[in-house]
Amino acid sequence: MDSGNAAWMLMAAAMVFLMTPGLAFFYGGMVRAKAVLNMLMMSAVAIAITGMVWTLWGWSIAYAGQDLAGIFGDPVRGFLLHDTVTADQGVFTSISAAHASYPRTMDIAFQMAFAMIAVALISGALAERVKISTWMLFVALWITLDYAPMAHMVWNHGLLSEDGIISQAIGAPVHDFAGGTVIHINSAVSALIIVLIVGDRVCFNKHPMRPHNLPMTMLGAFLLWFGWFGFNSGSALAANGTAGYTWLSTTIAACAAIMGWLLTEKIRSGHYSALGAASGMISGLVAITPSADVVSPFWSMVIGLLAGCICCFACGLKLRLNYDDSLDVVGIHGVGGLLGTILVGFFAVGTGLFSGGGFRQLLVQIIVALVAMLYAAAVTAIIAFALEKTIGWRVADKDEISGIDQADQGESAYEFFGSSKLIGQ
Amino acid sequence: MDSGNAAWMLMAAAMVFLMTPGLAFFYGGMVRAKAVLNMLMMSAVAIAITGMVWTLWGWSIAYAGQDLAGIFGDPVRGFLLHDTVTADQGVFTSISAAHASYPRTMDIAFQMAFAMIAVALISGALAERVKISTWMLFVALWITLDYAPMAHMVWNHGLLSEDGIISQAIGAPVHDFAGGTVIHINSAVSALIIVLIVGDRVCFNKHPMRPHNLPMTMLGAFLLWFGWFGFNSGSALAANGTAGYTWLSTTIAACAAIMGWLLTEKIRSGHYSALGAASGMISGLVAITPSADVVSPFWSMVIGLLAGCICCFACGLKLRLNYDDSLDVVGIHGVGGLLGTILVGFFAVGTGLFSGGGFRQLLVQIIVALVAMLYAAAVTAIIAFALEKTIGWRVADKDEISGIDQADQGESAYEFFGSSKLIGQ
Amino acid sequence: MDSGNAAWMLMAAAMVFLMTPGLAFFYGGMVRAKAVLNMLMMSAVAIAITGMVWTLWGWSIAYAGQDLAGIFGDPVRGFLLHDTVTADQGVFTSISAAHASYPRTMDIAFQMAFAMIAVALISGALAERVKISTWMLFVALWITLDYAPMAHMVWNHGLLSEDGIISQAIGAPVHDFAGGTVIHINSAVSALIIVLIVGDRVCFNKHPMRPHNLPMTMLGAFLLWFGWFGFNSGSALAANGTAGYTWLSTTIAACAAIMGWLLTEKIRSGHYSALGAASGMISGLVAITPSADVVSPFWSMVIGLLAGCICCFACGLKLRLNYDDSLDVVGIHGVGGLLGTILVGFFAVGTGLFSGGGFRQLLVQIIVALVAMLYAAAVTAIIAFALEKTIGWRVADKDEISGIDQADQGESAYEFFGSSKLIGQ
Repeated sequence: MDSGNAAWMLMAAAMVFLMTPGLAFFYGGMVRAKAVLNMLMMSAVAIAITGMVWTLWGWSIAYAGQDLAGIFGDPVRGFLLHDTVTADQGVFTSISAAHASYPRTMDIAFQMAFAMIAVALISGALAERVKISTWMLFVALWITLDYAPMAHMVWNHGLLSEDGIISQAIGAPVHDFAGGTVIHINSAVSALIIVLIVGDRVCFNKHPMRPHNLPMTMLGAFLLWFGWFGFNSGSALAANGTAGYTWLSTTIAACAAIMGWLLTEKIRSGHYSALGAASGMISGLVAITPSADVVSPFWSMVIGLLAGCICCFACGLKLRLNYDDSLDVVGIHGVGGLLGTILVGFFAVGTGLFSGGGFRQLLVQIIVALVAMLYAAAVTAIIAFALEKTIGWRVADKDEISGIDQADQGESAYEFFGSSKLIGQ
Repeated sequence: MDSGNAAWMLMAAAMVFLMTPGLAFFYGGMVRAKAVLNMLMMSAVAIAITGMVWTLWGWSIAYAGQDLAGIFGDPVRGFLLHDTVTADQGVFTSISAAHASYPRTMDIAFQMAFAMIAVALISGALAERVKISTWMLFVALWITLDYAPMAHMVWNHGLLSEDGIISQAIGAPVHDFAGGTVIHINSAVSALIIVLIVGDRVCFNKHPMRPHNLPMTMLGAFLLWFGWFGFNSGSALAANGTAGYTWLSTTIAACAAIMGWLLTEKIRSGHYSALGAASGMISGLVAITPSADVVSPFWSMVIGLLAGCICCFACGLKLRLNYDDSLDVVGIHGVGGLLGTILVGFFAVGTGLFSGGGFRQLLVQIIVALVAMLYAAAVTAIIAFALEKTIGWRVADKDEISGIDQADQGESAYEFFGSSKLIGQ
Repeated sequence: MDSGNAAWMLMAAAMVFLMTPGLAFFYGGMVRAKAVLNMLMMSAVAIAITGMVWTLWGWSIAYAGQDLAGIFGDPVRGFLLHDTVTADQGVFTSISAAHASYPRTMDIAFQMAFAMIAVALISGALAERVKISTWMLFVALWITLDYAPMAHMVWNHGLLSEDGIISQAIGAPVHDFAGGTVIHINSAVSALIIVLIVGDRVCFNKHPMRPHNLPMTMLGAFLLWFGWFGFNSGSALAANGTAGYTWLSTTIAACAAIMGWLLTEKIRSGHYSALGAASGMISGLVAITPSADVVSPFWSMVIGLLAGCICCFACGLKLRLNYDDSLDVVGIHGVGGLLGTILVGFFAVGTGLFSGGGFRQLLVQIIVALVAMLYAAAVTAIIAFALEKTIGWRVADKDEISGIDQADQGESAYEFFGSSKLIGQ
């Protein structure tokens, strides 16, 4: 036991937890004012339901130990966390795990916060048109059938792990530092699949649907960045030199990505926009996530610049291909996550193509990413389709047009009557 | 000395500090736009005055040692913290305390942040109608005469502590992990008493007074939750297994409470609302506070579900009983805090009625809660009544109607002139 | 190596990082709605460019070791941090530094976050009228030529350090705990110089220009305060008694400053305002920064009261002297920083005039502050003048009047159409 590492993991878990509210505001500012509460609620219930499902059987499937074909874990063995917590003299504490330098409860907390943000990410693609009740059910199913198994596959010696079959066959251990595959690629692919099933917003691609509150989006983006220090440096699982280094590489990439996005945007549209700065920083944070511990400061900067530039282009795709990934989950998390996962194969010190290695690292990165995409697509398609055919995803078109907040939440976000000069009173 | 525990206590103090701004936004979003600055100011000056009073004599009364009848401590012995800090080679540091694994200054910081949030909680009941000048005086008096003695009674071997007279007489040590009695019950009872003296808002129960900015309320609720990790896990006073466990039990209860509130609301009104999600999470956080270290994951979930459901009903009471607890301090913190304190008697491992114990734990929880309520009611009634009869609490009715921000703060919160499409410019 | 200290430095770096977004909102709420995105962008690109410049050569100039006349460091030796990070078995970590109890990468992170907030502070003086492109260039130049050398002079045994020539000549080591000189005085002097070159806003001093969103300003102020725990207590460079004590002295000063400002304002204008509470807390935080570890709780309170009162008066100066320091960078950070630096000479335990010392401490504080002001003024004047004569600082007057957000960012901050009752739909 090391109390310094424990203090850091406690904080890292709290910071990752704060990412989901951060995401809610990042997304919430981008929708129209009549749909912002629905957007915030999607994150709030994602937190609520994931917290319960993870406690009940999610953590058990991912980490409790019994393995089914390298894909699925035992949902019973760690049910309600009963194999990891214990009461000692009337006070609950953690059953000590031989391998770790901090109580296992902190690991469960850290992983729970990861699961929350992963499913919440998807909500950005579904803005302004989805019933909260259907979303609640989706969250429970997706955490159970997609996220927990994916975490098992990648982080618990499963199919997609460093010591899994794919890595062994290719002869190079796949590297995914803090969750490019499990979190970003997984969520973005799932988001795309649901959009294809659920369909576009009524007015999509017909007239401009501008963000209603860009300062809110900036607030959310900065809370995400703050939380990302827990996400990445916390993934060092200790307050050590790697935690310190990944604080830096994460920041370098995000800074470079802001500039990459802004310069791309300046060339394309003539402006440096606040939405671009916010989107750029997230794209850089996403792209550095898989590689934060294995790329030098120089390559961190390159990854950020590439992510900012490429994701800026990628976000325009939906208008051409005509699918309503409303807040660019695919363009930022999908493209950024895939880019970051693949760039490990080029830049990782010792194993990357440009840093002293060969093609094997690149190959294993690509294949693992593809398998993860296939798994996410298949499982999410089944869940989303089943929900569409039973309770249905969407609110009525007229409710979407008049505003989902009023229709589904029975509220409106703002009542500025009586405030200052707007109305008088 | 353990630097890991010290790092955690430093952070926990900072996180609990952040709860009061969080509360300010949680409350601020719920009032009307013409009163939001007054609401935010109540928390800001609660912080300012509590910080000074706690430094001067508050901490001394609560913790400096000399005891008066198990109720009141010596305000002089630790005046200006002079018995706990010292200059060593020209730099201030903490006098080491034999019993603790971290510098005592961090304990003072942690407790100061608790005092700040406790008094700020009360402000929610007094929204839109109270002069800041009266509130300033109230804060100083309440911290001195109510909060510091209550902290002394519960946390410093006083009347209501684990080794106090009541616990000894009943033969079971009362359990209040992180402050259900001192913070939530204490503040809510005080709030109710003041409302009865100060009276309702002019338009109360006549026409709807809707929240002016629900995203602001959501932001505040999530900042509160983030801070609550410091509040609860920090109450373990170390980065240990209990800190890790209470991170989880706190989260489980809050998640379950969101769902408990939303489902209750859905049945009653047909909607899942954002205000319900925000209120639900706070009710769960309140209810788990006394028991976070002694209830299993299962009972944590039950506590959350009960809190969400019961507090949702309790918030309707004020309309029937006709008292203007404007933002439901009684319904959420009072009912939630009392519920949580009593449920220790049912669910606490080893001592609770449903978990291997008998009636004694339940009895001591109820009696301690009742004594705390009586103390809070009596002291607050005297303070509030004295202020009402001297300088008075309320602004003029016409100022309340036209907006307290303009009348009392000389400002208005929002000036959207010239912004985008609203007016043109 | 001490993992507890490392955990604290990781967190402190993250908290200081969060100060710059906090500042963005503190400033952003104070400008008009048509310029808020430009204001937020100035902080966002300050972060982006500082992060890159600091990584490339900024850290090297400040800390890598080679010294040029006690003023400038070697920009090559630590270029891209290559002398401090290393890959060990394919994972990046920190080259161990003999003197520190935590990985050096955390020190680089902590210092990078300081550099970000320092340059962002300047933006408050330039609100509503400056092109983002010019600001980007300015940030890179100022970090390179002003901030990094200043950090070198103060914190790396240079001209203005405790063991520098000035301190040696006077026979008393200058004391600047967490950066009164490098951050606050430096930024405020630079801000004033640029304002004199760039000129006033078109409508300055002609008609009132009221804050468009004071709750946003309060949010920013509280995030700044939260981050300041990392800034000040993190400057103890360990989770020790001094870190604990500075948490307290920082809070005491900020609390007293809120009251100092509010009472001054009440006497002058008859109101306790929210803007006053927010400004007051920042003035207290600024003023305690140089002395947080060497003044007693009593003197901390006095420093806060003085800062609140004096800065409140100082912010009126710009209207009399007719320079458009739009958001009072000079009045708060300049006056507060100078006050705090000088008050060390009066209140520092053992060396201050009122606390057992003589005049030497006071003298060295004043002279070091003056030299820092001269350096900042000279370097910034050259940079700002060069930019003015080449690419120019300002947007066209008509764009400033119609709104810089639309003109420079191509966006507007708010689109409340379709939200609730405002418009209908």
